[in-house]
Amino acid sequence: MSEADTLGHECGVFGIIGDPDAARLSYLGLHALQHRGQDGAGIVARNAGNLAEHRGVGLVHEVFDEGALRSLPGDAAIGHVRYGTAGGDGLTNVQPFLARWKQGQVALCHNGTLTNAPPIREELEERGAIFTRTSDTEVLLHLLAASDQKTLINRLVDALSRVEGAWCVLVISGDKLVAARDPWGFRPLVLGRKGEAWIVASETTAIDFVQGTFVREIEPGEMVILDEDGIQSIRPFARKPRRACIFEAIYFARPDSNLFGRDVYPTRVRLGELLATRFPCKADVVVPVPDSGTPAALGFAQASGIPFAMGLLRSHYIGRTFIEPTQRIRDFGVRLKLQPNRSVVAGKRVVVVDDSIVRGTTSQKLVRMLRAAGAAEVHLRITSPPMTGPCFYGIDTPEREELLAHRMDLPRIRQFLDVESVAFLSMDEVREAVGGDGGRFCDACFTGNYPVDPVARRADAQLALFRGRPEE
Amino acid sequence: MSEADTLGHECGVFGIIGDPDAARLSYLGLHALQHRGQDGAGIVARNAGNLAEHRGVGLVHEVFDEGALRSLPGDAAIGHVRYGTAGGDGLTNVQPFLARWKQGQVALCHNGTLTNAPPIREELEERGAIFTRTSDTEVLLHLLAASDQKTLINRLVDALSRVEGAWCVLVISGDKLVAARDPWGFRPLVLGRKGEAWIVASETTAIDFVQGTFVREIEPGEMVILDEDGIQSIRPFARKPRRACIFEAIYFARPDSNLFGRDVYPTRVRLGELLATRFPCKADVVVPVPDSGTPAALGFAQASGIPFAMGLLRSHYIGRTFIEPTQRIRDFGVRLKLQPNRSVVAGKRVVVVDDSIVRGTTSQKLVRMLRAAGAAEVHLRITSPPMTGPCFYGIDTPEREELLAHRMDLPRIRQFLDVESVAFLSMDEVREAVGGDGGRFCDACFTGNYPVDPVARRADAQLALFRGRPEE
Amino acid sequence: MSEADTLGHECGVFGIIGDPDAARLSYLGLHALQHRGQDGAGIVARNAGNLAEHRGVGLVHEVFDEGALRSLPGDAAIGHVRYGTAGGDGLTNVQPFLARWKQGQVALCHNGTLTNAPPIREELEERGAIFTRTSDTEVLLHLLAASDQKTLINRLVDALSRVEGAWCVLVISGDKLVAARDPWGFRPLVLGRKGEAWIVASETTAIDFVQGTFVREIEPGEMVILDEDGIQSIRPFARKPRRACIFEAIYFARPDSNLFGRDVYPTRVRLGELLATRFPCKADVVVPVPDSGTPAALGFAQASGIPFAMGLLRSHYIGRTFIEPTQRIRDFGVRLKLQPNRSVVAGKRVVVVDDSIVRGTTSQKLVRMLRAAGAAEVHLRITSPPMTGPCFYGIDTPEREELLAHRMDLPRIRQFLDVESVAFLSMDEVREAVGGDGGRFCDACFTGNYPVDPVARRADAQLALFRGRPEE
Amino acid sequence: MSEADTLGHECGVFGIIGDPDAARLSYLGLHALQHRGQDGAGIVARNAGNLAEHRGVGLVHEVFDEGALRSLPGDAAIGHVRYGTAGGDGLTNVQPFLARWKQGQVALCHNGTLTNAPPIREELEERGAIFTRTSDTEVLLHLLAASDQKTLINRLVDALSRVEGAWCVLVISGDKLVAARDPWGFRPLVLGRKGEAWIVASETTAIDFVQGTFVREIEPGEMVILDEDGIQSIRPFARKPRRACIFEAIYFARPDSNLFGRDVYPTRVRLGELLATRFPCKADVVVPVPDSGTPAALGFAQASGIPFAMGLLRSHYIGRTFIEPTQRIRDFGVRLKLQPNRSVVAGKRVVVVDDSIVRGTTSQKLVRMLRAAGAAEVHLRITSPPMTGPCFYGIDTPEREELLAHRMDLPRIRQFLDVESVAFLSMDEVREAVGGDGGRFCDACFTGNYPVDPVARRADAQLALFRGRPEE
Repeated sequence: MSEADTLGHECGVFGIIGDPDAARLSYLGLHALQHRGQDGAGIVARNAGNLAEHRGVGLVHEVFDEGALRSLPGDAAIGHVRYGTAGGDGLTNVQPFLARWKQGQVALCHNGTLTNAPPIREELEERGAIFTRTSDTEVLLHLLAASDQKTLINRLVDALSRVEGAWCVLVISGDKLVAARDPWGFRPLVLGRKGEAWIVASETTAIDFVQGTFVREIEPGEMVILDEDGIQSIRPFARKPRRACIFEAIYFARPDSNLFGRDVYPTRVRLGELLATRFPCKADVVVPVPDSGTPAALGFAQASGIPFAMGLLRSHYIGRTFIEPTQRIRDFGVRLKLQPNRSVVAGKRVVVVDDSIVRGTTSQKLVRMLRAAGAAEVHLRITSPPMTGPCFYGIDTPEREELLAHRMDLPRIRQFLDVESVAFLSMDEVREAVGGDGGRFCDACFTGNYPVDPVARRADAQLALFRGRPEE
Repeated sequence: MSEADTLGHECGVFGIIGDPDAARLSYLGLHALQHRGQDGAGIVARNAGNLAEHRGVGLVHEVFDEGALRSLPGDAAIGHVRYGTAGGDGLTNVQPFLARWKQGQVALCHNGTLTNAPPIREELEERGAIFTRTSDTEVLLHLLAASDQKTLINRLVDALSRVEGAWCVLVISGDKLVAARDPWGFRPLVLGRKGEAWIVASETTAIDFVQGTFVREIEPGEMVILDEDGIQSIRPFARKPRRACIFEAIYFARPDSNLFGRDVYPTRVRLGELLATRFPCKADVVVPVPDSGTPAALGFAQASGIPFAMGLLRSHYIGRTFIEPTQRIRDFGVRLKLQPNRSVVAGKRVVVVDDSIVRGTTSQKLVRMLRAAGAAEVHLRITSPPMTGPCFYGIDTPEREELLAHRMDLPRIRQFLDVESVAFLSMDEVREAVGGDGGRFCDACFTGNYPVDPVARRADAQLALFRGRPEE
Repeated sequence: MSEADTLGHECGVFGIIGDPDAARLSYLGLHALQHRGQDGAGIVARNAGNLAEHRGVGLVHEVFDEGALRSLPGDAAIGHVRYGTAGGDGLTNVQPFLARWKQGQVALCHNGTLTNAPPIREELEERGAIFTRTSDTEVLLHLLAASDQKTLINRLVDALSRVEGAWCVLVISGDKLVAARDPWGFRPLVLGRKGEAWIVASETTAIDFVQGTFVREIEPGEMVILDEDGIQSIRPFARKPRRACIFEAIYFARPDSNLFGRDVYPTRVRLGELLATRFPCKADVVVPVPDSGTPAALGFAQASGIPFAMGLLRSHYIGRTFIEPTQRIRDFGVRLKLQPNRSVVAGKRVVVVDDSIVRGTTSQKLVRMLRAAGAAEVHLRITSPPMTGPCFYGIDTPEREELLAHRMDLPRIRQFLDVESVAFLSMDEVREAVGGDGGRFCDACFTGNYPVDPVARRADAQLALFRGRPEE
Repeated sequence: MSEADTLGHECGVFGIIGDPDAARLSYLGLHALQHRGQDGAGIVARNAGNLAEHRGVGLVHEVFDEGALRSLPGDAAIGHVRYGTAGGDGLTNVQPFLARWKQGQVALCHNGTLTNAPPIREELEERGAIFTRTSDTEVLLHLLAASDQKTLINRLVDALSRVEGAWCVLVISGDKLVAARDPWGFRPLVLGRKGEAWIVASETTAIDFVQGTFVREIEPGEMVILDEDGIQSIRPFARKPRRACIFEAIYFARPDSNLFGRDVYPTRVRLGELLATRFPCKADVVVPVPDSGTPAALGFAQASGIPFAMGLLRSHYIGRTFIEPTQRIRDFGVRLKLQPNRSVVAGKRVVVVDDSIVRGTTSQKLVRMLRAAGAAEVHLRITSPPMTGPCFYGIDTPEREELLAHRMDLPRIRQFLDVESVAFLSMDEVREAVGGDGGRFCDACFTGNYPVDPVARRADAQLALFRGRPEE
């Protein structure tokens, strides 16, 4: 666990065409993307021109059983894992969305946030459209159906040209599986092969997991069309400056993925090395907040020469529901996931390496636990800058007012967390570690430089008549 | 059980406005209508201008628990019980359908079948509409949203003027609950009060069950608008000759309901009396197929002077799943629900009174069971004419080719069922018992006189690209 | 439902030997005995000398699925349905009990109550025995294992000779299935065949249901030993006067069973006829409390000439849990199961025929419901005498203090129930209808003549250190 | 995961007396011991002299919900987590076992294996005892009840004096909670405090988790009696040489526990250091098999100077059921839990550090996965000697014939695993790292020196007439 665990995760998509076990491989691919969304999962498979779906609330292995997979025969499929489907009506919002329209059936799933969904929805409603989900993804289905273009591809281009924000979209209809990525390239999307089959997925780790081969990133603004004739790539959207989400590299993506062209694990080790160089500290042991902080802590230990040790242990038996033992056990929620390793920290000056601080409450509890286990000093080192703004492009961050670094300056943060020292990497340092050309990333949550106008999203809140909030 | 048990049941609707326990009372009302649909149930309740929903697959008491009812506060609600939501995606089709449109939120549920749904759907798709359910009810939502009228009422009138077939519709939106019944009056719909609150329901038994008072039938072609200002009734649709479903009176409706202005129980007793008069027979005992055949068997016994006895017992512990004991137990499916009472039938000439014969296989098994229990003779008396055609107005009958009376004439039916005699009431006799004026009823399944062109429905089958079939 | 529904039901047993589908047929047999216990069910099957078990809380069709039945191969099996396994530890008490002892494995199930279980348990504990269930059936297992006899049969005779009270016991061990019935013959136990296989069951309806043939009653004090060599009958126990439970005939047994040598259904019709003769009344309609009161009501109608009608309808969709709609719906619990049929009772003088009055609260609510539905007069006729004492031989009746007829005399009962008249059959009349020789029955709950000293049972209450109460 | 994952885990026990939240704290304590058994969990709590139980199949947080904990009030409780309750009857074997005996109620749970359970069971059966579980723990209950001693303590001493093998036993009865550890001290058992309350647990991590304080180990052969008067310690058993299970230190115990007087984490780091010193190798990176191999891999890296990296990633979303994607995904079972981190291992000479090799199949698959991810060389370093014999004292190891090191010598093991080199620590080296005095440990699975005659256990297999195998 890490501070970023308190962020809403985003989503993950997986698609495959040309393999007779399409749904089964999608099931595995979604399992490999489970870290991108734990609340719901779904697959739509194509068999003999017909689309069948299975969706459910929960983890991939909870949603699908043998019967479900058997009900999804066929050689092409798309799937989705999702964050945030709490509540009784959660299933309604689980993707992919399957619909019938003029040309037959179409299914679609989406990772990202459409910043101008509210005004488009308004416009569509004006023309008589009805919406049955709270998700902005439904807007895409309507645009697709309402387009005056003829072919699926042209309609999809038409629809996607209308929306702004972050989107990686998979569509299956007729004989085609289409994957498209927004021109800014906020969210990752990669292409792979398994034998004759083509794979598209949010991360390379999913391709590896199904024992396929990573081919290349799908480029920002690219649309890849997969069918019996093989692969076709078009670039129908207006060019934009590349703005890959830097937080994917810092926290979200699996450490064994290749993200935006670079391996994640060495990037995170490098972030830790930079921290050690820029913010050295006298200490006896470097302790990661496992598992996401581990590579950076190893980098910090290597660069600083301070020994690395597992001073916090992560439990493997956490369930969705756990009964709070009233108020008698302090910091219980955090303690359930992470336990201090007394023999490592007792009497020691401890450097704790984590990837981010969001609200700060988890960090505060961790520090308290380490002190209770005997830590003599606690120094906190964070591999990202202070987070000062929400994300409007696919990550469900808290309101600005709840962000610790928005509420206080560094001295007060140190005091609040009760640590001997605390240090954050600067944006420049992160950019350097993550991959050079600083202009390539979206770092709005750290810098306030929002590449796409987020005003639309605020308006959305006012329009939301459904319970819950608009989601990716 | 009766032969009619092999028919798909139709649906039931319940709505209430002006009671602070609207959802709880709807829950009870739907339970009282459970005989009209056992496969799914849902309620949408209005609270402070917001609509919340809870829907699920199963019986009313399985779908709703205390938590679900607590999530539905408010003083107005509509609900639905439904037949036919098998399969993993069943929930999608469970009503009421809740949608967001230009004017906010709207929820709608429906009992019946729209015979021209397919061409309307085609037309709507042409204009860019997407459909996510297989139910024709979704067409109504689209027509509502696409209407160029301004007010909810005008839009609803506009939408309902477009559709043909059988429909009892409940709509909740803004401050109004609207109930409308098609001009033919195929399906029943009644109005009641409970204190200050207004109730609308498929049958009077639901009003009784919540301890309300039956006010009157909602007339064919009538639209009733309920809000804070009380009740308003309009008749915006073109007049049609009344065509109440005669099969509701014969089999579907609860015996304690008042249907189309007459009590059901005495009607069924009268059907039995007519049978005894028209088709007398020498016998020792009159045995009903319980529970639906019981009133008619009592009537037959009374008119014939032959003693009535429970020669078939109905089990109370039938579940949704029951394991077939391979092929070693003959007629097992029927035997699970009905068991012969040997002491009543052994050595006796038995008159069995039932309400209808559909495919004939259940009747055949019942006869076999009675003979195995020692019946000397079996005489079958049916309170309806031979069923020769399917229903296109809300009851899920088998294809014409499967109907016993379509496949054979009376002598062969007798032979097939292996009975000493079999007799059906004529249409005229049924009309007389059920209520006089023969022209008031739809008896198409017995006579072939379809009041609304069923061609559309056949087309529908070809358009259905979704798995499953279009329903109510 | 009837007043007797508020009694705890007792249990049912089923065993079969010599059929390769022994467990599957037991499953069906237990389903046919479901009316004798709805709270738990279990089967132990013998395969290649090994005993396997499956037990669970709930109805037979809920406890067993295909997998469970597949796990119980073999040609011999015994099973049990049980009343009263509420609470988290319910499963522990579900029978049959399977144990390992000196001679290998043994499984046992039991219908009845051992009145001297507490002192025997005490004695066994004194010698070092441990008990893991609250059921007195466990005492039998201990006596069996502790016997100094050598053979299974001698041990079983030894064990059963020690216990007093009511017991029908099935035992399976080694190559034998043994059935034994206490010398008083309180509870029913019958023998049947299905092809080469032998069946033992609580009631003949279970033999019918598996399409076997009823052979004869197992006599009071008889022990039947079934194995490859066929059937052997011994009578090892001291003779006692026959004391069959008269309440089985009045209420518990299925109407299609042959009980204690007579068919149940005509017995109950006869009870109704007697009521009509002895306690006539001017009325317009005879209404049964369905389903248990129906045969008697038919007898009453026949004898009195007053027409019979279904003035109370029984719901088929009752589940284990149903949410109470607060206090706004009066008599809700009863109303869930039974609804008044207004067209039958409105403005009429109604005779209601039921089998018994226990606490009286259900009857009171039924009367209230009938009056609310318009009944002009309500006359209650009961096919048993006033119940004044608890049962100590297998039926879980309330304490004496809760019994209506213990608390008040007839005039006050009439007043309490708010009926124009109320009448009970006398014990002599019931004996006459049920089968002549009055001495054959146990009628202690009506007369106070307890054939076996119930003092032991009272002592039991004091010894019960486990939560819950001793059962069957 | 590690090779040792293919071992059956053993069990864990937790008890507390003197805290009003005894069951809730036991729930937490058992959660902290979840690594010792994932298949079943139970708690017995004492309230006002009465014992109540809740047990279930699954993880602690699956077995207990708020309702379950509320049903367990009281100030004293014992609990158990268990390995190995597969099958439908699993619940029967879940501990603690609650029974009623002469002195009232008693509950008992046990970690270990009683090697002479079979002959004792035989003897008890001879005297008329019945057994309802397959667990040898039931023997203890019988011995307790059959003892001719008077007090609970004397009876317990009597019973435990009869059994041989490994046992840590918790008993609750009357006003006492008793904890006892066998004279060899095979399994760990520790004492702690939380305020005024006393805690006993298998490992110190459970005391830490409930925020109690570790007091001391319960000594081999010690019996600790806890009641209102505080703590009393007796040593009623014949002295034996200490034989703590060395495999607890190598693999089983949590790294944050203090085991047999030493912290586990630094012990495992030391094992890695020893490996690096004794079996150095030229390599580019040291990779642990997470999580159990991580401390040793860190020690290896530190001692060798070769950088440490997470070359294998552990998935957090593993469920109990996962659908095998037929045969198309190689090594799927292992891959579900562990994924190779390509950027760490590609082109590198990799040292993999693990704690043990049992059957060798998991190691073989891991090596294959690493090579597929591009590892140039794979060197395996194991922190224990070759495992050549089964455990008879509480760990469910495979038969000797399945153990890799029993089947082959080192060169063939290297070949089988397809590694460039493989090395095991010697027994002496492990003893040195784990704690000096070699005589203190049981290392029978590595050396064949079984401190207690395991013959009895083999006999047990023949006696087992129940399905399944005798368990701890």
